[in-house]
Amino acid sequence: MLTLEMIQDAKKVLNDVARVTPLFQSKVINPDADVYIKCENMQVTGSFKLRGAYYKTANLTEEEAKHGVIACSAGNHAQGVALAAQKKGIKAVICMPAGAPLAKVEATKSYGAEVVLVPGVYDDAAAKAVELQKEKGYTFLHPFNDEHVMAGQGTVGLEIMEKLPEAEVVFVPIGGGGLISGVACAIKSMNPNCKVYGVQAAGAPSMKKSIEDGKIETLAEVSTMADGIAVKQPGDLTFAMCQKYVDGIVTVTEGEIASAILLLLEKHKMVAEGAGAVSVAAAMTNKVDIAGKKVVCVVSGGNVDINILDRIIDKGLQENGRLTEFSVTMADKPGQLLQLIQVIAETGANIFEVVHNRIANGVAVSNVVVDVVVETRNEAHSEEMLAALKSKGYAVKL
Amino acid sequence: MLTLEMIQDAKKVLNDVARVTPLFQSKVINPDADVYIKCENMQVTGSFKLRGAYYKTANLTEEEAKHGVIACSAGNHAQGVALAAQKKGIKAVICMPAGAPLAKVEATKSYGAEVVLVPGVYDDAAAKAVELQKEKGYTFLHPFNDEHVMAGQGTVGLEIMEKLPEAEVVFVPIGGGGLISGVACAIKSMNPNCKVYGVQAAGAPSMKKSIEDGKIETLAEVSTMADGIAVKQPGDLTFAMCQKYVDGIVTVTEGEIASAILLLLEKHKMVAEGAGAVSVAAAMTNKVDIAGKKVVCVVSGGNVDINILDRIIDKGLQENGRLTEFSVTMADKPGQLLQLIQVIAETGANIFEVVHNRIANGVAVSNVVVDVVVETRNEAHSEEMLAALKSKGYAVKL
Repeated sequence: MLTLEMIQDAKKVLNDVARVTPLFQSKVINPDADVYIKCENMQVTGSFKLRGAYYKTANLTEEEAKHGVIACSAGNHAQGVALAAQKKGIKAVICMPAGAPLAKVEATKSYGAEVVLVPGVYDDAAAKAVELQKEKGYTFLHPFNDEHVMAGQGTVGLEIMEKLPEAEVVFVPIGGGGLISGVACAIKSMNPNCKVYGVQAAGAPSMKKSIEDGKIETLAEVSTMADGIAVKQPGDLTFAMCQKYVDGIVTVTEGEIASAILLLLEKHKMVAEGAGAVSVAAAMTNKVDIAGKKVVCVVSGGNVDINILDRIIDKGLQENGRLTEFSVTMADKPGQLLQLIQVIAETGANIFEVVHNRIANGVAVSNVVVDVVVETRNEAHSEEMLAALKSKGYAVKL
Repeated sequence: MLTLEMIQDAKKVLNDVARVTPLFQSKVINPDADVYIKCENMQVTGSFKLRGAYYKTANLTEEEAKHGVIACSAGNHAQGVALAAQKKGIKAVICMPAGAPLAKVEATKSYGAEVVLVPGVYDDAAAKAVELQKEKGYTFLHPFNDEHVMAGQGTVGLEIMEKLPEAEVVFVPIGGGGLISGVACAIKSMNPNCKVYGVQAAGAPSMKKSIEDGKIETLAEVSTMADGIAVKQPGDLTFAMCQKYVDGIVTVTEGEIASAILLLLEKHKMVAEGAGAVSVAAAMTNKVDIAGKKVVCVVSGGNVDINILDRIIDKGLQENGRLTEFSVTMADKPGQLLQLIQVIAETGANIFEVVHNRIANGVAVSNVVVDVVVETRNEAHSEEMLAALKSKGYAVKL
């Protein structure tokens, strides 16, 4: 059973490898609470995963270390294991689905790991990892369901308690539950009055469902931009820790996640991945009553694929009424587009993109569909602009 | 004349308003040096400008404070002045060019300032500010050429010396020169052996040219994505400080700036604006010999318009061979596109965008131009893919 002593031991072991990441005060996440961000996105390898992976490898027997380790991951665990093994001077093999982003493959290789790209999806890569492990005698490094891994992740909780012992609420993302198991154990052991809440994506609430049902549940499918916490089934060890220590689990929507990423990016100049931002999303939207309280949001990682970051930004802008997409069907005659654009300009909205489409599905030959994206100040401004268009007789389709 | 004592006084005054921003070690900026980032992008308002603006407003006479202050800025100075005035409880009027990004206008208003949007460009807004200042008796807050402002900015240098007194090289962005004047004064007063280098965009080297010519020079035009340092003429006070304290001024290209922004975003999960990233660009590209040295890069701000961040990312990806754009002209027959895409896929490159264009300029009726954007691992991989296409007879146009 995971204990505070194990986590304290992990902290010592991690001293030279992991950063004590900043605990950053935010005035903008929730105006009614005193909110802090624990920036594990600024951890070496871009996420907290290094902590658990390193403490695990540090506890391998000599024999195990000689044979090397294997893991399966398309994301943060891959980089955490690769660097941990490199630091300990042991071999690491990482199985990744062949479609993993190039940047993540390259980053994992840059830490000296051997990357095996497996055709198919995550499950295929996992099967390959098991196969290789048996064949070569590697030690399999589980991403969460392992006491040493949980103890390593728990050092995040120790650091929070050292810097802000008076914290009253801590929000922690949950995928498989390794991070919250360690963090909740550390925090509840040091300050039992501090509430610890887990946060899951509404499209992947496996731990929430399991806790509600009192037994481990497996979701048929998960769907969320927060790929780092898109986990179908919690582990038995992490499930037991959540039952014991966690005060509640809340979920956040995709739009709320995108808004949180956008806020962190714009206001705090920080890149968070979806999984990392769910804690901030929960605090922004008062999923728990935090008015007047000292609140810590663990931003668990920042490894978002750079090529999809702009899509997430767009979603966040739309969520806040700052980017409005609509289409208008009108006569295909000179001057029509000009009139449309004039109406938009008069409302102070800024045109971002216009696509003038003659061959859209179902449009009459004499008509054209114009797809427009405009930049607006907020929801009210967006509605004002749409109302102006409607008042001029445009058939606006959102 | 600016002195260390003034800067120390500014530090006391700023205590409750400005953050002591993190000084962050980076293993990836330059493999041959021990590099740190001073994260002024994480300063309140998103840049160092709050420091100078607040120290300046704190030193206004009672009479001046009663009348309020005015400034002209489309960027960081606007937010710095607005928040400084709000904290001191005095009125602030900010003239901004009407085309300023909505997000910056909103941020400035959110700090309680009165924003006057002036049709035209920056110079028109500046003229309006002078007009309003005369008419209403406001105090004009210069963005850099002011001793109190320089002293406030100099607190960045104090903080570097407090955390890393053994620093050997410090890179500081230069626009008008306010930041480097204060920083160099602080550092040279505390550790004369530490070298202080200014960094300008190659498209806006006004201070560099002025120092080289021994007199203040005015550039006819400036052009750089680093809008925060696109300054045509340094001030006389800042020019004198640079002559006295600065060891040299280097310039960086637009591609180098984009690469630096991308590295900070991907590897350190930090948003830097162009002006903020030039210091990192200089360290990445060894503009000065820093091998084996302890180096600090001042990342001065992170207020990049979110809507253009993705364009900068694209530029950075292209600069590093990770995004390759090209077009191919081929026969407009079924199966042609498939063949092209097969060749690309075989090289392991990932297709990002394909535009199949029948009405491109100058293309024969029987032909079609296909514009392709592909994701590649690096420059070598990009060249490998292009070579594969050429070997199959495709007329590739970059």
